[in-house]
Amino acid sequence: MKAIFIMVKCDLGQAYKVADEAVQGVEQVSEVYSTSGQYDLLMKCYLDEDADIGHFVTERIQTLPGVKDTFTLITFKAFG
Amino acid sequence: MKAIFIMVKCDLGQAYKVADEAVQGVEQVSEVYSTSGQYDLLMKCYLDEDADIGHFVTERIQTLPGVKDTFTLITFKAFG
Amino acid sequence: MKAIFIMVKCDLGQAYKVADEAVQGVEQVSEVYSTSGQYDLLMKCYLDEDADIGHFVTERIQTLPGVKDTFTLITFKAFG
Amino acid sequence: MKAIFIMVKCDLGQAYKVADEAVQGVEQVSEVYSTSGQYDLLMKCYLDEDADIGHFVTERIQTLPGVKDTFTLITFKAFG
Amino acid sequence: MKAIFIMVKCDLGQAYKVADEAVQGVEQVSEVYSTSGQYDLLMKCYLDEDADIGHFVTERIQTLPGVKDTFTLITFKAFG
Amino acid sequence: MKAIFIMVKCDLGQAYKVADEAVQGVEQVSEVYSTSGQYDLLMKCYLDEDADIGHFVTERIQTLPGVKDTFTLITFKAFG
Amino acid sequence: MKAIFIMVKCDLGQAYKVADEAVQGVEQVSEVYSTSGQYDLLMKCYLDEDADIGHFVTERIQTLPGVKDTFTLITFKAFG
Amino acid sequence: MKAIFIMVKCDLGQAYKVADEAVQGVEQVSEVYSTSGQYDLLMKCYLDEDADIGHFVTERIQTLPGVKDTFTLITFKAFG
Amino acid sequence: MKAIFIMVKCDLGQAYKVADEAVQGVEQVSEVYSTSGQYDLLMKCYLDEDADIGHFVTERIQTLPGVKDTFTLITFKAFG
Amino acid sequence: MKAIFIMVKCDLGQAYKVADEAVQGVEQVSEVYSTSGQYDLLMKCYLDEDADIGHFVTERIQTLPGVKDTFTLITFKAFG
Repeated sequence: MKAIFIMVKCDLGQAYKVADEAVQGVEQVSEVYSTSGQYDLLMKCYLDEDADIGHFVTERIQTLPGVKDTFTLITFKAFG
Repeated sequence: MKAIFIMVKCDLGQAYKVADEAVQGVEQVSEVYSTSGQYDLLMKCYLDEDADIGHFVTERIQTLPGVKDTFTLITFKAFG
Repeated sequence: MKAIFIMVKCDLGQAYKVADEAVQGVEQVSEVYSTSGQYDLLMKCYLDEDADIGHFVTERIQTLPGVKDTFTLITFKAFG
Repeated sequence: MKAIFIMVKCDLGQAYKVADEAVQGVEQVSEVYSTSGQYDLLMKCYLDEDADIGHFVTERIQTLPGVKDTFTLITFKAFG
Repeated sequence: MKAIFIMVKCDLGQAYKVADEAVQGVEQVSEVYSTSGQYDLLMKCYLDEDADIGHFVTERIQTLPGVKDTFTLITFKAFG
Repeated sequence: MKAIFIMVKCDLGQAYKVADEAVQGVEQVSEVYSTSGQYDLLMKCYLDEDADIGHFVTERIQTLPGVKDTFTLITFKAFG
Repeated sequence: MKAIFIMVKCDLGQAYKVADEAVQGVEQVSEVYSTSGQYDLLMKCYLDEDADIGHFVTERIQTLPGVKDTFTLITFKAFG
Repeated sequence: MKAIFIMVKCDLGQAYKVADEAVQGVEQVSEVYSTSGQYDLLMKCYLDEDADIGHFVTERIQTLPGVKDTFTLITFKAFG
Repeated sequence: MKAIFIMVKCDLGQAYKVADEAVQGVEQVSEVYSTSGQYDLLMKCYLDEDADIGHFVTERIQTLPGVKDTFTLITFKAFG
Repeated sequence: MKAIFIMVKCDLGQAYKVADEAVQGVEQVSEVYSTSGQYDLLMKCYLDEDADIGHFVTERIQTLPGVKDTFTLITFKAFG
């Protein structure tokens, strides 16, 4: 499994609905946090080693109602 | 109690209505200033130590009519 | 009295020394917070109505050892 | 415990040394990833509810040799 | 009297109408220039020492037809 | 005569020395203000219609001791 | 005559229509290039020494159908 | 033949349709990748030495349904 | 094998030396282009599916003499 | 021949020396302007159709004494 982080900006007032929807409806999503900074949410997702990250972000996260923009952070190696 | 600062950008000409609404309708808001810079208003809010900041910003401030964007600044420690 | 906010970026590892120095050595400084975001500290200062803000920021805050950059936010009106 | 994320930019060629040092020498650091994007590392840290985040970032992370810049992302709530 | 500068971005093709309107209809406006850079107009305004700058910008300038965005530059001291 | 505005960022703590030097030593400088925002000073200069603005900024303003960066704003027309 | 450069961003797919229109319909336009970078077109225009550049950009270029944004670069002196 | 790279931002959820359309419908497109970062797709295209790059980007890529923005990166020389 | 793109900014005048060094000394580098835009070079590299991208960028590319900054673009899927 | 534009930022006070040097010492440079905006100079250069633009910028312009940064704008087609 590989871990990716997706920062999500939502329509005004919609961040918590998006968070609930992601946690309940998207199985790869393991943690969702509301955050400070320019994005509203930070999602940590676990995908199979051979999963297509772009497809996942485009088809599963960007299509959640209330999502306005996403920024995907890829991790290469977990230390520790 | 913990202090947070929310910078608010408003629709053109609406900043003072937003400020009044925030002061009168949102109890956690303790000070509102109109400011220079790219945001119109700076709000200082006091929340309970265990309050959910993201929920407060998303549900109480972003939903005020006339708000266009918010940026939340978290404080960690008050000196002095 | 008028309130101004000064956001301060410090040399790596120096933010808390700067905060202490500001609180103890600059009388106009009323509150200092360490914060999230691109700046390390947020200082709230009260100046006399006829005080020269630029002079205060330039001569009293920018000259504290460990300060790297400042951004001054002027408030126009306090609501509430 | 509360979770925070610190994005870290390192001196050229030093990211992996910084990562090792953080994992081995800073107990609050629970996960470190090397990442794509403008920062080199993403660190997830768990702090006590009453810990001073600013102090931790300034004194424990910014002072690791090879660190050039940090950006702290505060989480408010964990969903799911 | 205190001097402030307001940089104004206008709807496409509307900058000169905005400039005329400001000069003729807003008494505090003393000079208006069309300029290079990301804004279309630079307005210099003189306000009473105790005037509310935020109110002036929000209610008198942002509401001029054709204005898209404003950025207010506060002056602290006039040299020379 | 044509009016130009030069925004000047100065070395830490040097803005007022630069302002004094500009007012006393550069005859085309008619007004200097300390300001809010990312620059420390705003200078209004009057140049002859056929003066070389680039030469003036480069040779007369950028060479004042304590100047770190300049941004020149050209005005095209004065309304009113 | 003085030379100015106008960088023009166009609606998707419209850059070449805008370029043709500018070349054929605006006499001050002497050269138009499609370019790399964030703008689609670069226009070099020659105006009379006493022409009002802001008026030209606002009334003649910004009003061409398909133009979305403009950025005007003023030249001060031609070397060589 | 010369190689250019076009970074493409798409409407939410449309990146893979755009990618398919580009690969199948635009013969100059030789490789398309979904990517991390602020753009969704990276397209490598081969054009004839005397082809008009601006025309290609404007008329063939910007007009694909679902494209929101493009940024063109020109290559000068291939090493190796 | 997976393809990644690394954009490289070099010290003034050093871009071609860096390009040569990368092509000749780093086996994973398959193509290097000099480019327009804010970076000087674009490198396409092929890594084993289980290679550590962060380690490769940090230890092999950032340490080439003349490199000033890197930005790594990860590809998820190759279409076509 | 193909036309390219190079925007050049110079060390403080050095722009005119750089301009003179470029005009007199680099034959491909056909026009140099001092300009408003974030760069000091705009150079228009004509290169042979098969010239290596990256080599020219890196070896001939970036190495002029007093140059601090360059940004190259490629033109694709000249209209009109």
